Amino acid sequence: MSKTKVLTGITTTGTPHLGNYVGAIKPAIEESWRDDIASYYFLADYHALIKGRDPKRIHQSTLEIAATWLALGLDTDRVTFYRQSDIPEIAELNWILGCMTAKGLMNRAHAYKAAVQANEEAGEQDPDKGVTMGLFCYPVLMAADILMFNAHKVPVGRDQVQHIEMARDIAGRMNHHYKTKFVLPEAVVGESTAVLNGLDGRKMSKSYDNTIPLFVPEKKLLKLIRKIKTNSLEPGEPKDPDTCTLFQIYSAFADATQVEVKRQQYADGAGWGDLKNELFEFLNEHLKDPRERYNALIEDPAFIEKELLKGAEKARAEAAPFLTSIRQAVGLKPLV
Amino acid sequence: MSKTKVLTGITTTGTPHLGNYVGAIKPAIEESWRDDIASYYFLADYHALIKGRDPKRIHQSTLEIAATWLALGLDTDRVTFYRQSDIPEIAELNWILGCMTAKGLMNRAHAYKAAVQANEEAGEQDPDKGVTMGLFCYPVLMAADILMFNAHKVPVGRDQVQHIEMARDIAGRMNHHYKTKFVLPEAVVGESTAVLNGLDGRKMSKSYDNTIPLFVPEKKLLKLIRKIKTNSLEPGEPKDPDTCTLFQIYSAFADATQVEVKRQQYADGAGWGDLKNELFEFLNEHLKDPRERYNALIEDPAFIEKELLKGAEKARAEAAPFLTSIRQAVGLKPLV
Repeated sequence: MSKTKVLTGITTTGTPHLGNYVGAIKPAIEESWRDDIASYYFLADYHALIKGRDPKRIHQSTLEIAATWLALGLDTDRVTFYRQSDIPEIAELNWILGCMTAKGLMNRAHAYKAAVQANEEAGEQDPDKGVTMGLFCYPVLMAADILMFNAHKVPVGRDQVQHIEMARDIAGRMNHHYKTKFVLPEAVVGESTAVLNGLDGRKMSKSYDNTIPLFVPEKKLLKLIRKIKTNSLEPGEPKDPDTCTLFQIYSAFADATQVEVKRQQYADGAGWGDLKNELFEFLNEHLKDPRERYNALIEDPAFIEKELLKGAEKARAEAAPFLTSIRQAVGLKPLV
Repeated sequence: MSKTKVLTGITTTGTPHLGNYVGAIKPAIEESWRDDIASYYFLADYHALIKGRDPKRIHQSTLEIAATWLALGLDTDRVTFYRQSDIPEIAELNWILGCMTAKGLMNRAHAYKAAVQANEEAGEQDPDKGVTMGLFCYPVLMAADILMFNAHKVPVGRDQVQHIEMARDIAGRMNHHYKTKFVLPEAVVGESTAVLNGLDGRKMSKSYDNTIPLFVPEKKLLKLIRKIKTNSLEPGEPKDPDTCTLFQIYSAFADATQVEVKRQQYADGAGWGDLKNELFEFLNEHLKDPRERYNALIEDPAFIEKELLKGAEKARAEAAPFLTSIRQAVGLKPLV
């Protein structure tokens, strides 16, 4: 009864990469095994429409992300795992919450302000050039995602903390005016250790095109690891593990003893070629079983679809009666 | 097959008055008998949330408006008569359309601009003070209302023409980018004769608090008619019917011959007291039967609810498969 509800959304615009795994998927799946937590994971395909207008990409990404989570051992009987657009209650709540949201709040959203700033810097006459209502209204939809299930905690990156505060603000207004009982959600910011660098040494991110997809074939994995940027120190020269992407990736998968051994290899002047080959072997060992499951799942979309529909049923069993109570509170209810 | 679809929404924030009847309800019900037209009438309760935050008022207004249309003879087997919030597909389409709507388009909406101007004139620091996301996003929801049913024509007041143009613009973008087949709706602006003045001589409108509710009890109707502002001309003096609210209301209910007779009475110098009493008798004669039906309906909300649910079923039978095709087009679809 007193479980803490933790909610995580994954936008269906890309292919999961190592950075997603280390920063979000792995901790989320681990957390799902805790008995004091009720986990909600959803494929945010309504959100995907904001950035991506490529229907095939959204569809393929939905398949890949769902397959990834399942391949990594997500137990869909323990958690609520669903596709956002299977829950029409969210779109309804989105409208209801919007009627209680100050436009001024959205004017201050980082993502929107960044778009305006980019336009201004580019000398655009219209500060809203290229900004869609989807982008502008996004924090309201995110509030609906969270408030729909009365999530207590929402793990987010630092750039998303503001959105959780907005969801709190909206929930507070609703509770104040309509005497509803929305839980005020809290942001949980992941520790910085969970951010992984990409091929070029910047944060691994689809937008930098520097990612290592989680389940690429072995050969491709080796090729990508060999492309990771290192410095020009020769074999035999001591190297600094703490500024090294190879070491960072290794550490994300290794236990404390393994990390110490690796650290010593750097101090002892191991060569980049060897370090790369070893990272490949080590990573591949970790990834080959889930990769096999992933490949099998990708070939069986019907199974994934069934899992998602099961999740939707579970989610709606909760969302539908709660939305009914909210509708009632705002005046949308049967005449008898 | 080639019927013209005509869609009309009625915001559930008030009690229907004579102005609503003459300007919107009467022509709409008459139109519903035409065989070349498929009529859609909906109680816009999502829209009601924008203006009214009084749940009881929204609920009561829904009852009163539905009872009014039914009392006036709307044949729910001929038309599609539904409550907006019973059609979750509309809220979903609202989000999808928003992702294809330029924010700049909404910045130019009259209702929003009027709110900003009022703030500026009041010397407010924040031009968006008091503006909710509901108000700002309203034209997108209205586009969803219209495009959901591929309405060809939307009867509106002049102030709403812009919203229909926005719906066209959004439909055009969707069709262009996603190859969807949304009908581009057209605004139909009612003739000026259909606007009725209120007790004080200004346009009859809830916001001016100058209305004559359509189905007030007889005594109250007489009382309100006696309050209609006239000038100080004495009995015996000729009067100008064309600037007279009494005459305007009379004409809205009378046939051409009756109007000519009444016009002569004005020329002949009939007194205001007599003219008011006659208007009451005349109006009451027109309204007493539907008023009786209205009162009976108000006492039978279960019947009205049944009618609305029947309408929702009919509307969703059309909306659900169409939304599925739109979802498919934007990339929201089952994995198999």
